[in-house]
Amino acid sequence: MPIWTIYHSPDTLTPDQRQRLAETITGYYADEIGLPRFYVVTVFREVPADDFYVGGKPSARAVRIVIDHIARRAPDSHVRRQVATRISDLLAPLMERHPDVHWEFHIDETSEELWVINGLVPPPAQSVAEKAWGRADTTFPY
Amino acid sequence: MPIWTIYHSPDTLTPDQRQRLAETITGYYADEIGLPRFYVVTVFREVPADDFYVGGKPSARAVRIVIDHIARRAPDSHVRRQVATRISDLLAPLMERHPDVHWEFHIDETSEELWVINGLVPPPAQSVAEKAWGRADTTFPY
Amino acid sequence: MPIWTIYHSPDTLTPDQRQRLAETITGYYADEIGLPRFYVVTVFREVPADDFYVGGKPSARAVRIVIDHIARRAPDSHVRRQVATRISDLLAPLMERHPDVHWEFHIDETSEELWVINGLVPPPAQSVAEKAWGRADTTFPY
Repeated sequence: MPIWTIYHSPDTLTPDQRQRLAETITGYYADEIGLPRFYVVTVFREVPADDFYVGGKPSARAVRIVIDHIARRAPDSHVRRQVATRISDLLAPLMERHPDVHWEFHIDETSEELWVINGLVPPPAQSVAEKAWGRADTTFPY
Repeated sequence: MPIWTIYHSPDTLTPDQRQRLAETITGYYADEIGLPRFYVVTVFREVPADDFYVGGKPSARAVRIVIDHIARRAPDSHVRRQVATRISDLLAPLMERHPDVHWEFHIDETSEELWVINGLVPPPAQSVAEKAWGRADTTFPY
Repeated sequence: MPIWTIYHSPDTLTPDQRQRLAETITGYYADEIGLPRFYVVTVFREVPADDFYVGGKPSARAVRIVIDHIARRAPDSHVRRQVATRISDLLAPLMERHPDVHWEFHIDETSEELWVINGLVPPPAQSVAEKAWGRADTTFPY
């Protein structure tokens, strides 16, 4: 958690841009939210135009991102808007290089009680154990 | 929003059927629900039998659709059933050509406050600005 | 329902392991929860390292599973923890053969009222009709 699934047209995200985007995303959750870095998983899926439709028309210029948040949930409407705006700002510098690309994301929030890493229930948010996992950069029984 | 992710066996949805299905889906949201057409994204993913299991057995005859709704949520049980039935009716004419195919969909509903297109928070449902986006067939600051 | 989407690095899940994992998953839902076997869909998606990032770094050793539950929802925190632990225990024997693999799953729960199989609204949980679908191993009007 979080997991980002990024559907993108060929030639919209180069390997180098994918790498840097994954780093940017991870930096946000680690440095601003306090999550262990290895919690952040990013999956890129290239989708050719005849499999990718925007408004019912095949698109060779689209990036559609599906985000699942688990370990942290926004408590109210105000924070949800803040989170969406912050993530939009993370993406904008990259996406603005492609003014012809339709780019869109949405976030689902799911229960932290239905989540396991390496066979272990992750420690509570902001607990000592969560910080220790972050410093160790891996899971261990706690 | 919405996004449809359609996992399908090879030889169940031809390129032409994919195109027409994306148009049908888009027409439903645009004409019956009033969404801008470009809100509707459809992603097709072909899955070979040894990656696609129904009931624990590899399947070469399956279509499994995952739908996320964001901009509109069904307010109660009655409307949820109506939405599910309507979408089933959209799919039935195509799927009934393949009586041996297992086809199934489910819909998740997520927060419209955690959703951004082209760096912009979409306008409220049925607002003047939403209609203007629909007429322009693209986003613009409002 | 349920649908498991399993993103995995090359060389982490062989075809034979995928087959047996799909059987294990299906057995759990059928034998322990009482679902018809054909409700259980498993989709495997191989993801190369330059499309798969853990902690912002490309990974060739990751298995990330996204699970959607529909027909049954955990009623409270205690049951959610039980479900997560049981599913972790199902996966552990396979994953423990790969001690260097990051493996992680999370479960989303969505409305059974927004779900259709083969054009039919599935029968209520644990109803006579649901059991009949299970015995027939397919859908029929009820």
